[in-house]
Amino acid sequence: MRTSGRWLEDLITPDAQSGYELAVKLARVAVKLTQPDSDIRTQLRSAYERDAAALIQVSHVVAVHFATIARANRYWTAA
Amino acid sequence: MRTSGRWLEDLITPDAQSGYELAVKLARVAVKLTQPDSDIRTQLRSAYERDAAALIQVSHVVAVHFATIARANRYWTAA
Amino acid sequence: MRTSGRWLEDLITPDAQSGYELAVKLARVAVKLTQPDSDIRTQLRSAYERDAAALIQVSHVVAVHFATIARANRYWTAA
Amino acid sequence: MRTSGRWLEDLITPDAQSGYELAVKLARVAVKLTQPDSDIRTQLRSAYERDAAALIQVSHVVAVHFATIARANRYWTAA
Amino acid sequence: MRTSGRWLEDLITPDAQSGYELAVKLARVAVKLTQPDSDIRTQLRSAYERDAAALIQVSHVVAVHFATIARANRYWTAA
Amino acid sequence: MRTSGRWLEDLITPDAQSGYELAVKLARVAVKLTQPDSDIRTQLRSAYERDAAALIQVSHVVAVHFATIARANRYWTAA
Repeated sequence: MRTSGRWLEDLITPDAQSGYELAVKLARVAVKLTQPDSDIRTQLRSAYERDAAALIQVSHVVAVHFATIARANRYWTAA
Repeated sequence: MRTSGRWLEDLITPDAQSGYELAVKLARVAVKLTQPDSDIRTQLRSAYERDAAALIQVSHVVAVHFATIARANRYWTAA
Repeated sequence: MRTSGRWLEDLITPDAQSGYELAVKLARVAVKLTQPDSDIRTQLRSAYERDAAALIQVSHVVAVHFATIARANRYWTAA
Repeated sequence: MRTSGRWLEDLITPDAQSGYELAVKLARVAVKLTQPDSDIRTQLRSAYERDAAALIQVSHVVAVHFATIARANRYWTAA
Repeated sequence: MRTSGRWLEDLITPDAQSGYELAVKLARVAVKLTQPDSDIRTQLRSAYERDAAALIQVSHVVAVHFATIARANRYWTAA
Repeated sequence: MRTSGRWLEDLITPDAQSGYELAVKLARVAVKLTQPDSDIRTQLRSAYERDAAALIQVSHVVAVHFATIARANRYWTAA
């Protein structure tokens, strides 16, 4: 499975906040790869944006990616 | 994807309790980034605050973030 | 976000059983922080205590916290 | 939160199979701690035993505990 | 809790593909231990095989076990 | 449980993007192993492609596999 264009350079970010922002991006990419049609995604987004369970689920996926990115950046500590 | 302002300095906290509080914050930020409208979030909150499944789901996201923060702080032990 | 009083000293417990009990506590605290009203929590509890899916979900959150606490205590082995 | 009696000695098991069996036990204990009434648990069990989603969810909790136990036992390899 | 017969030797597999196959097996065993009646499992299987949410949930459990098995096999790399 | 043919060489990828693509593949394989009938999978796909909760769940499974693959590739950093 190949995705088009270079959308992910690496997992290294200058700080935790930008690491969190990358986690949000990674959580969204899989949705885009599974549903490539942007019109359908826009329709779905208007629904799940007002669905508490879906919003919490999105937050859960971000948390899993953030754990990976934090580990890749050694938690942004020198240690 | 850039978030506005500096809302996350780093993952280092003085102790486990403040680490847990940071995990709660990180769990909420992704909801805020996915649903930027605070009025809608307030409406949603009044619903999911009384929904056991949603509350447990929130706790699950906090647990995933807490694992990351605890690891970043070496579990707040000298080792 | 600050919680009131000192409810979490650290993650170190004398053994695996007390580590598991701490995990149960950590799973519950996030629910308490998200729904501070104890009457509402009591109502919700009487519902989800008889809901198999919710009970399994609670067990899942405990499992995530237990993994963190076990790691913090080096799995209660000298190694 | 204290549980009664000694139900968990430690996480060390002689092999992977007994480690998996311990994971199944740990997944069930949290349900027992959340719903102490054995009659209610028996009623619930007769329902979720025939619910595919619930059975998969139980398997998910076992998987999380198994990861912890495998790590505690260094994956039952000398390394 | 003891399971009958030796169904799990260890977590070591010759390569990633056989590690993935072991993860699928481990995901299924917990369902079998929770619902020992094979006729009921067959009925359930004919239902969840056509349920997208259940199939994705199964994939999720496999992913958690695969993470454990990959770690046990040092990711099938000499390092 | 044996799958047919060699569909997974190893977990090593040249970069994070191809690691993410492998994670998407691994998330799909378990669905294929659980529901071998491609016609049924095609029917299911046309349903869950328009289901926000299912799309987020898929993203969650990808996140778990991506964590494993990133760890296997030492986060694509020399360290």
